[in-house]
Amino acid sequence: MSAIHSSHLPASAILLIHCPDSKGIIATVSEFIYQNNGNITNLDQHVDLEREVFFMRIEWELDNFIIPNEKIGEYFDTLIAKRFQMQWQLHFSHEVPRMALFVSKQPHCLYDILARWKSQEIEVEIPLIISNHPDLETVARQFDIDFHLFIINGENKREQEQEQLALLAKHRIEFIVLARYMQILSEEFISHYRNRIINIHHSFLPAFPGAKPYHSAFERGVKVIGATSHYVTRELDAGPIIAQDIIRVSHADSVEDLIRKGRDLEKVILSRSIWHHLQRQILVYQNRTLVFS
Amino acid sequence: MSAIHSSHLPASAILLIHCPDSKGIIATVSEFIYQNNGNITNLDQHVDLEREVFFMRIEWELDNFIIPNEKIGEYFDTLIAKRFQMQWQLHFSHEVPRMALFVSKQPHCLYDILARWKSQEIEVEIPLIISNHPDLETVARQFDIDFHLFIINGENKREQEQEQLALLAKHRIEFIVLARYMQILSEEFISHYRNRIINIHHSFLPAFPGAKPYHSAFERGVKVIGATSHYVTRELDAGPIIAQDIIRVSHADSVEDLIRKGRDLEKVILSRSIWHHLQRQILVYQNRTLVFS
Amino acid sequence: MSAIHSSHLPASAILLIHCPDSKGIIATVSEFIYQNNGNITNLDQHVDLEREVFFMRIEWELDNFIIPNEKIGEYFDTLIAKRFQMQWQLHFSHEVPRMALFVSKQPHCLYDILARWKSQEIEVEIPLIISNHPDLETVARQFDIDFHLFIINGENKREQEQEQLALLAKHRIEFIVLARYMQILSEEFISHYRNRIINIHHSFLPAFPGAKPYHSAFERGVKVIGATSHYVTRELDAGPIIAQDIIRVSHADSVEDLIRKGRDLEKVILSRSIWHHLQRQILVYQNRTLVFS
Amino acid sequence: MSAIHSSHLPASAILLIHCPDSKGIIATVSEFIYQNNGNITNLDQHVDLEREVFFMRIEWELDNFIIPNEKIGEYFDTLIAKRFQMQWQLHFSHEVPRMALFVSKQPHCLYDILARWKSQEIEVEIPLIISNHPDLETVARQFDIDFHLFIINGENKREQEQEQLALLAKHRIEFIVLARYMQILSEEFISHYRNRIINIHHSFLPAFPGAKPYHSAFERGVKVIGATSHYVTRELDAGPIIAQDIIRVSHADSVEDLIRKGRDLEKVILSRSIWHHLQRQILVYQNRTLVFS
Repeated sequence: MSAIHSSHLPASAILLIHCPDSKGIIATVSEFIYQNNGNITNLDQHVDLEREVFFMRIEWELDNFIIPNEKIGEYFDTLIAKRFQMQWQLHFSHEVPRMALFVSKQPHCLYDILARWKSQEIEVEIPLIISNHPDLETVARQFDIDFHLFIINGENKREQEQEQLALLAKHRIEFIVLARYMQILSEEFISHYRNRIINIHHSFLPAFPGAKPYHSAFERGVKVIGATSHYVTRELDAGPIIAQDIIRVSHADSVEDLIRKGRDLEKVILSRSIWHHLQRQILVYQNRTLVFS
Repeated sequence: MSAIHSSHLPASAILLIHCPDSKGIIATVSEFIYQNNGNITNLDQHVDLEREVFFMRIEWELDNFIIPNEKIGEYFDTLIAKRFQMQWQLHFSHEVPRMALFVSKQPHCLYDILARWKSQEIEVEIPLIISNHPDLETVARQFDIDFHLFIINGENKREQEQEQLALLAKHRIEFIVLARYMQILSEEFISHYRNRIINIHHSFLPAFPGAKPYHSAFERGVKVIGATSHYVTRELDAGPIIAQDIIRVSHADSVEDLIRKGRDLEKVILSRSIWHHLQRQILVYQNRTLVFS
Repeated sequence: MSAIHSSHLPASAILLIHCPDSKGIIATVSEFIYQNNGNITNLDQHVDLEREVFFMRIEWELDNFIIPNEKIGEYFDTLIAKRFQMQWQLHFSHEVPRMALFVSKQPHCLYDILARWKSQEIEVEIPLIISNHPDLETVARQFDIDFHLFIINGENKREQEQEQLALLAKHRIEFIVLARYMQILSEEFISHYRNRIINIHHSFLPAFPGAKPYHSAFERGVKVIGATSHYVTRELDAGPIIAQDIIRVSHADSVEDLIRKGRDLEKVILSRSIWHHLQRQILVYQNRTLVFS
Repeated sequence: MSAIHSSHLPASAILLIHCPDSKGIIATVSEFIYQNNGNITNLDQHVDLEREVFFMRIEWELDNFIIPNEKIGEYFDTLIAKRFQMQWQLHFSHEVPRMALFVSKQPHCLYDILARWKSQEIEVEIPLIISNHPDLETVARQFDIDFHLFIINGENKREQEQEQLALLAKHRIEFIVLARYMQILSEEFISHYRNRIINIHHSFLPAFPGAKPYHSAFERGVKVIGATSHYVTRELDAGPIIAQDIIRVSHADSVEDLIRKGRDLEKVILSRSIWHHLQRQILVYQNRTLVFS
């Protein structure tokens, strides 16, 4: 198993489930855990009444749990999941995921993530930083992380992405964070990390398409600016939303002020999304997230 | 049964539980509902790890539930609650609670609540408004609600409260909302409506004791003002917090501006608390609420 | 003069100005007021460096001001405005503006405005409410305000608007608030009240065009919903923004919850915009507002 | 002159003024600037009507200004300030202030400030970091800044502070930021940097005195936690407030969650305060700030 062990938390299992709604799901799953001597510490569920879909995140302590960790998935699938046509994922809290950071020129999100990692606020391995610009190599060096430069142009994109994928595979990367990575990923690349690439982008009320959204927002005199983090899908910036927030602005703010205030928003929301992802709080269903936090 | 029936929502039962934490509670309760043909539509639980207390709010549809409504409490108590030493409350979504409003001179919270009631945003009966000042009788009249004036002074307080209690009992009032009622309730009065009197008051960072907190806040140059709603306990403004929020202010705001902005906060938070109370989302434990919303 | 007099505030004059930026504007204007024995109580200015436009709101006490109120505009225009090519508006704080409310079926904004008016939070005359549906006549009656029903269809729209305009003129209406008025105003109608019709609408990140934006927002799993107030221009919902704010939501919120939470946002923001308008804090320039608050 | 020059902004002068309110102040000051060929780019003023005090921040471009920079203060004092009994400060936008950071064990504020500094979001010199614990020396090293350890106990406090003051003087430090420095400064120390030491601390509604406020807040079930930055005065945490904000929490948040969420708040608010200080936007009067932003 690739993950290293997190020492200071009691080991627990986390199960994320969705399936057609029907009676008895909670009773059956909680009974399964109870009968095998597990102690449920967290259960969040939600029923989408319109689509008739049931969602659940359930966490239990592994101490004295009768089924060995490596068999839990198999047993759960055989005994319960098939019966309810469940889609499920099983995670263990003591496994530390491996994350890759993709960056370009702007350092604010990168610094924020690395500071949290270095001060152990987030438990994650960061084996490497990938960039399409050399600018942030100095930041990578400050934090002693390998920096890989992939300069991408119209001709070499496919090839470069293949090398990136090979590198990610070699480092057993579980999920990717685009920390202001200004390069569109190909559908093929995304298909390798479905619901495992987190992006952050500014958002406005109303939305401003085009190349310079902050300038448009300024010209429209908006009173709030926002940021949205989401999982990357092939439709640009249209993937399942993980977190959103806004900051108030006024006519006195210049375009530069908007951009500066937007940075604070972006870094906090992106890091909050990484937190949710690491806590296995996010369930994706039909381009929509449920965040059980 | 005192409540009238709410027609446009499917009838469901809501159970609020807390008990010493132990394995198997969720399994047992959900099995109880499932075996009796109930469909769980909502389950929220929380474990207070430090105090080792388990909390749960569980809601299920009553259609086809085998146990008749009037027997659910008895069966649950006998079969489950005793075994786990549970404290529990049972509510039915189709029962419309009866609420009394207490007011003094300021109309903003009163108007906000009555407008929501009149436009059926909240489903509640409001048989009467009680006040210690005549000022808001006109508002009561606008909404065709009985207005009862109880002028209170040092001498008649006990007597007046007794009459208020008699009136509340006569109208089978389930809970009371102090919509800017500027009169301290006696311990005895409160004891009749434990965790059933909702109050709203301004709050500041830092706190400003004394008679004119808005003036103190102004003089201290605070940048946010807040409001807090809570259940009334005998210690003034120290009961279990239901909801809190703040609004940003600046040096340019006069004391009057602070008070005006505070009003918007107060009315929205008080109405939000009424909503939580009506949805039976609030569980109180040791001067602390859990709001399962 | 059509306005009644506001008694409890010291009378002051408010001048809103914009002009090409140049040196000496503040000095010249403030000298003009000072030389004529005015005491400036508020001065807000802003320079749009990119467009090289100067904006200012300046307020001074009229006590002992040498120029009579009815001559201030003329003197200012002759002595100063022409020299700097200023566009300007002059208001007097003791004049109470006359406002018309346009509504359809939803009462939340209407109630909020009327409650503020009735409790004298806002000083404004409300001679009439206009609606394209009969539903809210009861609310108008609760507050003793004339209610005028104009049922509008494809054929009679122009005619009905002409009658509305006549009615507004007759009542010397200065500005109009669309308190959830679900009817598009014609260009001609708008041209009579340029930057004097305030509208409120929900807004989302990202934007959801189409008939059912709340449903789209729900399906996209947004984490915030917003509302925007603006002056009405002929491009639908694209006029100068006055105020915006958001509220946080989650996957647990149904479409109905989003709509309900949106209402709280809408009413508070619309009323905040009315406040800014009444305080003469809003300057419009090229489809953008400056709100000097 | 101690400060280095900031190259990419047009040089401007910033004057912060307060004085007894009287007619003609704005006219006189703006005339002074205009007559000497200055172009005002920003003017913010405020009148405290109760105390009858006038406040102003005025900024103008120095290009072609007739009075040489080093004489502006003298001329202004002679010609204007004395006449109106003004207290005033003059700053130049092209002077880059020198800041010292004081830290203890928690790195979140330190990282946030250094990242902004390194990416040139804030223009400031940081010649040294002072700490009473060795823990954060590694962070100082990551950013190549001198780290000075002053271990302080009951006996050596006065002596250590004297050495700190000598060190600060030697490095010509203009202002100090306590980035979670867990050591109370003596009155004497503070007197050397009056309104020039910025601190950040958590704040709650209601306030929780005592050693473990986050635990108290948790036990009280608060729904928001806050943070406040202020200038340090001898009364602990009671100095003039610069910025405040809050974050929403729920019963589901553990004490550790509150502390973690509090960190995000603390770092953003502290950095926002540094921004205001660097922009010379803060005026302090009688333990209250005016922040002209």
